[in-house]
Amino acid sequence: MNNINVTPIGVIHSSLKSLDDCPLQGNEGAPEALVEIHAPYAEALQGVQAGNKILVITWLHAADRSVLKCYPRNETTAPYVGVFATRSPDRPNPLGLHPVKVMEVLDGNQLRVHPLEALDGTPVVDIKPDISAR
Amino acid sequence: MNNINVTPIGVIHSSLKSLDDCPLQGNEGAPEALVEIHAPYAEALQGVQAGNKILVITWLHAADRSVLKCYPRNETTAPYVGVFATRSPDRPNPLGLHPVKVMEVLDGNQLRVHPLEALDGTPVVDIKPDISAR
Repeated sequence: MNNINVTPIGVIHSSLKSLDDCPLQGNEGAPEALVEIHAPYAEALQGVQAGNKILVITWLHAADRSVLKCYPRNETTAPYVGVFATRSPDRPNPLGLHPVKVMEVLDGNQLRVHPLEALDGTPVVDIKPDISAR
Repeated sequence: MNNINVTPIGVIHSSLKSLDDCPLQGNEGAPEALVEIHAPYAEALQGVQAGNKILVITWLHAADRSVLKCYPRNETTAPYVGVFATRSPDRPNPLGLHPVKVMEVLDGNQLRVHPLEALDGTPVVDIKPDISAR
């Protein structure tokens, strides 16, 4: 199969303005953030409610797609392994998976969520219920 | 942000040859499958081992990307909701998330995994450790 064309369905608004500010995982002190769904896709959000546990899937646009091996969690004393054995953002297709709780739904197209470690301006590509959290 | 170009890093080989054969979730009787990683990305698999719990992320190429609302699990007695409130494959960006166990690593670029509900020929776009399974 040839290349796949993914359309951003929304964007992250966050107080995290640089990569140095971002924790490695959401549960390591990440703040609340606002997930804004673009107007053509707002209808697809119906049924998502405060209290739901969801997976926000992002495109980590600041990542280096040429990286195939890395030190997990940037610890150079750890084994140097393939990126598919890690959660490094640097990988051929830098998809971010963020398990978060919906705190509030605003204006039918914005979700206030917690905790989210993604950078301000990160494109959102999908949202799913977090089945593993049930 | 404009459209995003995702490159398939592998492909699913499965006994599931038609959508009618596919269970709705992997844990609903899905078979083993083989995840073949294309040669340029095989190095990124180093460190993935038999026994690991991983997330295989696919592109559900047979999905209908125009669908914004649906009946969850095709049950028309359920509320008609937005696709982001469901795990329906029909959605603007049909990414599939498959939590599986690695049964065996073959030839350095193939993973025998269980259970996987994706169709034979489904493109693979990413692999990550399944943190929620720890």
